[in-house]
Amino acid sequence: MKKIDGGVTTPLGWMAAGVHCGIKRERLDLALLYSEHPTIGACTFTQNRMRAAPVEYMVARKNHNIRAFIINSGNANAITGKQGYEDASAMVEQTARELDLDPLEVGVSSTGVIGRYLPMDKISAGITKAVSELARGREADHRAAQAILTTDKVIKEAAMQVKLKDGTIVTIAGMAKGSGMISPSMKVQHATTLSFITTDAVLTRPPEERWQEAIDKSFNVINVDGDQSTNDISAFMANGAAGGPPVDDNKEFWNAVTKVVQSLAKQVVTDGEGATKLIELKVVGAKDAADARRAGRWIISSSLVKTAVFGADPNFGRVLAALGNSGAEFDIDRVRLTIGTGASTIVLFENGRPQLPPCSEGEVEARKLLSQRRIVMTLDLGVGKGQAEAWGCDLSYEYVKINSEYTT
Amino acid sequence: MKKIDGGVTTPLGWMAAGVHCGIKRERLDLALLYSEHPTIGACTFTQNRMRAAPVEYMVARKNHNIRAFIINSGNANAITGKQGYEDASAMVEQTARELDLDPLEVGVSSTGVIGRYLPMDKISAGITKAVSELARGREADHRAAQAILTTDKVIKEAAMQVKLKDGTIVTIAGMAKGSGMISPSMKVQHATTLSFITTDAVLTRPPEERWQEAIDKSFNVINVDGDQSTNDISAFMANGAAGGPPVDDNKEFWNAVTKVVQSLAKQVVTDGEGATKLIELKVVGAKDAADARRAGRWIISSSLVKTAVFGADPNFGRVLAALGNSGAEFDIDRVRLTIGTGASTIVLFENGRPQLPPCSEGEVEARKLLSQRRIVMTLDLGVGKGQAEAWGCDLSYEYVKINSEYTT
Repeated sequence: MKKIDGGVTTPLGWMAAGVHCGIKRERLDLALLYSEHPTIGACTFTQNRMRAAPVEYMVARKNHNIRAFIINSGNANAITGKQGYEDASAMVEQTARELDLDPLEVGVSSTGVIGRYLPMDKISAGITKAVSELARGREADHRAAQAILTTDKVIKEAAMQVKLKDGTIVTIAGMAKGSGMISPSMKVQHATTLSFITTDAVLTRPPEERWQEAIDKSFNVINVDGDQSTNDISAFMANGAAGGPPVDDNKEFWNAVTKVVQSLAKQVVTDGEGATKLIELKVVGAKDAADARRAGRWIISSSLVKTAVFGADPNFGRVLAALGNSGAEFDIDRVRLTIGTGASTIVLFENGRPQLPPCSEGEVEARKLLSQRRIVMTLDLGVGKGQAEAWGCDLSYEYVKINSEYTT
Repeated sequence: MKKIDGGVTTPLGWMAAGVHCGIKRERLDLALLYSEHPTIGACTFTQNRMRAAPVEYMVARKNHNIRAFIINSGNANAITGKQGYEDASAMVEQTARELDLDPLEVGVSSTGVIGRYLPMDKISAGITKAVSELARGREADHRAAQAILTTDKVIKEAAMQVKLKDGTIVTIAGMAKGSGMISPSMKVQHATTLSFITTDAVLTRPPEERWQEAIDKSFNVINVDGDQSTNDISAFMANGAAGGPPVDDNKEFWNAVTKVVQSLAKQVVTDGEGATKLIELKVVGAKDAADARRAGRWIISSSLVKTAVFGADPNFGRVLAALGNSGAEFDIDRVRLTIGTGASTIVLFENGRPQLPPCSEGEVEARKLLSQRRIVMTLDLGVGKGQAEAWGCDLSYEYVKINSEYTT
């Protein structure tokens, strides 16, 4: 298994395009993904009960053989009622017609401002343009990845290659968007933020369980602002163009898929709205994995923890206060909180007592660690063997700026 | 029933003091409340499982006859283990000794930074000073109210008078603190932020149910940042000094108590860390009251809703997205969201459709309403008769500033 420089068209048989259709003033706003061969895959969607029209449309169809995805940014087509549903349907119908596919083979996704109708004339012209511009290669990857962004500052891509036993090399690649309204809460068939994973490996059946496991270890543990989106979708599509033996139960293959989505998920958090730091929290010693996840999510979502990290303030009390609110079980006399890794690990709390007196040397060191771009914290709840990770970001002035001025 | 200008010593038989003992650099940091007569009352505490030492101490004792309260600010005495508990106990013992009370008649409370030990020498000297400065009148009220503040910008006071049937006038007054780490989640015997209500009315038994009802309609509906504190306490104490018939079941009296705590709760939200606006959200048409509360709390806690209000942005989609995440039941075709009151009410969403096209006259009007200091929103879920209120505040640059620089 190895990491490579690649994007959605790096796996064989995949093409992409990213065009400007006019939803946004200047930037690319319409992406198209297309496989030259039939596919097998799985989709996961937001659990928010206020689902956007394209999500409603996709959920209603439950298709595992999507060959093309049409995705617009700048307008979420959410909370737009019957007309929104018809608009999503029209996007699919036109894309299928122009690519000569069955509408069931086409997926649709939108992201952007909630509560506005799509400018369908612009989108319709954009679809035609996107179809005509479908291409393979890094430029096509980048244009597609660019066209799905909203407040994101950078595109998110990741790719891995795996050599199968017969020598076949299969490629897995993905693109994602997401920087705000990110707080996944996923079950089987549910996911978060937009992400699209392509591969040329051979599958023989929809990989729902495997895909769920990968999501549970990636998008499932991230949080930017505690607000789960109305539009989240995460799609995995395999077209078999590389040939070789089926990978349905190939552990190394699924590990590579997991690495791709983990990389994308971390890129999303790192580009979280206004984020200046990535927080990687590992919760251990919990009653069970669910309790560990509960504690991790709660802590990583706490505005007070996030602002303390922004300020490089080793205010560990806020972490423990958030733990207290999470509902997770803990034994305060055995709780242990550290920051840093390896030799530079600093204990903040242990044996029921704070370990860093104000202005101590340790506190100065802790501030240094908290000033870095990546903050690693480990919290032992002291009651069992449950473990989980939670990845988040800090809360900065920029977050407030972005979100108080978003639609203006 | 009438509103009066008053504070904790306005009811007969109550004295107070606020002194500087040296936990903070310059500001008052130790408050003392004292009743010349025995009392009957009720206390409510945080439900955070990570409870501060003074809360643990108070909960363990379950006393309904507290005559004196010693309260420090600047240090929460939270997550301080055995020593913290002993320090809380020592504060009570000394206060009782100097006031010639049974230690069971003395309450203790702390607020401020978490995870640091109290400077007990300073506090001990401060207690002696506070006892010597106990007084009645507005200056004493203000000094006590000042001494319990942390990041608060202003003191919070409220007072009401009720004329009983025999002509006796009883007074209810309170003080509160709280501007961050405010997200009450209360059950009977649990409450949030520090608040202390005094009255000279006659009670014959601990008013736990009545007090809970008042809290449910006040502190129970506010939210600043979603982080429930380790230290919250809300105490109600009646010393009977005004005489007259018992008010245990006097509806008007309890309405007046409710008005006092509602006023304090709104003052807390309005002074929320960095808050520039008070948001009053009324949820109606819910399946039941619990569902209405769930929806209200979720919406009022959403960082995206809060930043939109800060930016005076009528981004109603964020309100509905938060509703979708709350778990509350709704019928999107019957959901109705308005801002404003009376003639200036503007409908943002109705009949399954957004009602304000971008740049429309209505949108301009909505922006005007959202630019005021007090924002009133009404959300009808369209499925039943359940109702609830939720009060919150916006999320501003100042919140980030305060919380990223708090302990430095």
